[in-house]
Amino acid sequence: MQTRSFMLDVLITHIRQKVDLTDPQAAALQSFFSLRKLRRKQYLLQEGEVCRTLAFVNSGLLKSYLLDDKGTERINLFAFEGWWISDFSSFLNAEKAVLNIDAVQDSELLLITLEDYERLTLEIPVMDRYFRLLYQNSLVTKDYRLIMHNNFTAEEKYLDLLQNQPEMAKKLSHSLIASYLGLSPETVSRIRKKITLR
Amino acid sequence: MQTRSFMLDVLITHIRQKVDLTDPQAAALQSFFSLRKLRRKQYLLQEGEVCRTLAFVNSGLLKSYLLDDKGTERINLFAFEGWWISDFSSFLNAEKAVLNIDAVQDSELLLITLEDYERLTLEIPVMDRYFRLLYQNSLVTKDYRLIMHNNFTAEEKYLDLLQNQPEMAKKLSHSLIASYLGLSPETVSRIRKKITLR
Repeated sequence: MQTRSFMLDVLITHIRQKVDLTDPQAAALQSFFSLRKLRRKQYLLQEGEVCRTLAFVNSGLLKSYLLDDKGTERINLFAFEGWWISDFSSFLNAEKAVLNIDAVQDSELLLITLEDYERLTLEIPVMDRYFRLLYQNSLVTKDYRLIMHNNFTAEEKYLDLLQNQPEMAKKLSHSLIASYLGLSPETVSRIRKKITLR
Repeated sequence: MQTRSFMLDVLITHIRQKVDLTDPQAAALQSFFSLRKLRRKQYLLQEGEVCRTLAFVNSGLLKSYLLDDKGTERINLFAFEGWWISDFSSFLNAEKAVLNIDAVQDSELLLITLEDYERLTLEIPVMDRYFRLLYQNSLVTKDYRLIMHNNFTAEEKYLDLLQNQPEMAKKLSHSLIASYLGLSPETVSRIRKKITLR
């Protein structure tokens, strides 16, 4: 029990950054989640399966991605500690997932099923507010990324990442960054050289 | 007063499709919104301004878009009746907007300021649930569009629109559709001819 209640600390802290969660509510969270450990490169979800859980990253790092026709990974999201990850469309609509999700590092996840996610927001209504605030930030980020994809050159995309997501630029390999930006590793290398020469 | 309470019907119906709103809560909504009419081509927001309101489309049709270096409109969103529209990042963070929003048809909007949006969710907590459900659907749509942008050919994008957003394909001009898909009008014409010839 000691381990299990410790385990929710990251989540509770994250929730309390956005909303007021009482101690009894925090204690009640435990019944909604289960723990899952993933080793590096292990899958949480594979394309074609139904995504049965929404995952909160308690520790570690995961990525969600599409595999294109050539087998190249097109990164959708990196989820660091304190982030949520899923194939949201598959999770909400019980459809086949188009995304793959795997662990970039050894990771520990808190998983919630759709049924428990709905029960959670009904039994602890402040969680509606938490998810509303979470999704509202996520929409801003996605809008920005969509705009960036449509309008930025390869070099602008890379410089934008360095400036606005320095943590990501520091923690991830060059090939993962290239995949996230929808660029080839060669293009990223070329841009890096060009920047260094300035 | 007759006109004003009629005016909220579209919004109340939309909210009640997602959550239980009591009659007193529905009546209280009135104090949070103001009415704004736009003629076709009139701006709601111009790039560089701060987006002070979130807009619900009571009737009509609006579009939000970026202007690229060449002055070409890159459509971010079409908002039909019953949709919400804003430069969300600008609205939430009081930053300068990167998007322009204008009316594609004569339109009637219900506007809410950030202060009233926050007061609304605090005073009528079920609105947190409403926006949570709204944003969750919006995230699914945006994820899909981001994936589509990264992985679909021009022809696949166009066919996907015909299949999954037939209403949009029917209501919008070819040049607006091209802009929404990030394609040139010439490319869309070429695809349409090719499809017709099959």
